[in-house]
Amino acid sequence: MTDRDPIAAAHEQWVDHGWSDAADGMALVTSLTRAHQLLVERIEDSLRPHGLTFARFEVLRLLAFSRRRSMPMSRLGSLLQVHPTSVSSAVDRLEKQGLVERLRLERDRRVVLASITTKGVEAVEAATADLNARVFTSPGLAPDQVRCTTELLTSLRQAHGDTVATRAQA
Amino acid sequence: MTDRDPIAAAHEQWVDHGWSDAADGMALVTSLTRAHQLLVERIEDSLRPHGLTFARFEVLRLLAFSRRRSMPMSRLGSLLQVHPTSVSSAVDRLEKQGLVERLRLERDRRVVLASITTKGVEAVEAATADLNARVFTSPGLAPDQVRCTTELLTSLRQAHGDTVATRAQA
Repeated sequence: MTDRDPIAAAHEQWVDHGWSDAADGMALVTSLTRAHQLLVERIEDSLRPHGLTFARFEVLRLLAFSRRRSMPMSRLGSLLQVHPTSVSSAVDRLEKQGLVERLRLERDRRVVLASITTKGVEAVEAATADLNARVFTSPGLAPDQVRCTTELLTSLRQAHGDTVATRAQA
Repeated sequence: MTDRDPIAAAHEQWVDHGWSDAADGMALVTSLTRAHQLLVERIEDSLRPHGLTFARFEVLRLLAFSRRRSMPMSRLGSLLQVHPTSVSSAVDRLEKQGLVERLRLERDRRVVLASITTKGVEAVEAATADLNARVFTSPGLAPDQVRCTTELLTSLRQAHGDTVATRAQA
């Protein structure tokens, strides 16, 4: 039994097995998975008292930011970069909690909007304050490291097809 | 409708709402979540033809690396940094696939070992070759960026309590 980093150990195994070309990439992906897991745990801990998960928080936050406090379900999915079924199940749960309502557009009844309620706005503002204080203001790296890591992750996202233009284009 | 990065847009909203102290941390966490999602999709695509998920691949890979090709279930959980129930459900599925067997230690029948079968070794070697070729040798960043990102993520993991010593300590 050793008290060492399992990811460093895996990297060494990769090199020992002759997979040197892939060892750094393996360590990157595995580190990303683990860092994500640790941060999501902290986020979920902060949101639990508010009756929210990170997915549901993100839906509420987007709706609260929007000028009309409502948005087509399809638009929510594209902004959150998740599958329509994920948006739908998050909105189902938020609707049961009284934080969101589904509305249908009269002039085009195919369009379903998600609309945040007053109770939803109160919930998301309180949750945002907690998340900012407990996680986002001190995510575990120095400010310049935070920006540097985000830039590298942005390049990674771009390489995998994400739009990362920083200015509105239409 | 704009064709821009939703994470950059969220960062701008955070600043506009007076949450500048938290904006960079929010962008980091959100970028990490998205980058993780993109890489896991690529990994799962590579593993699907092998009948494996990333979680099950990791179990098989650790067992194949171990000298005795078997390991106590509890040890698997601590090396994979996941909950015992996650290990148990991965091993259940691998057992049904004929890739792993559960064994009980005769001298201490409380200890259950997971042991990789010959079929399991063949499956994990083929899956590793594919993952290395399709994901790990070209994860989406230049080699120096890959190492730099991994170092930053290692600091982040350390800040959240992970052991990241690079040398065996016992």
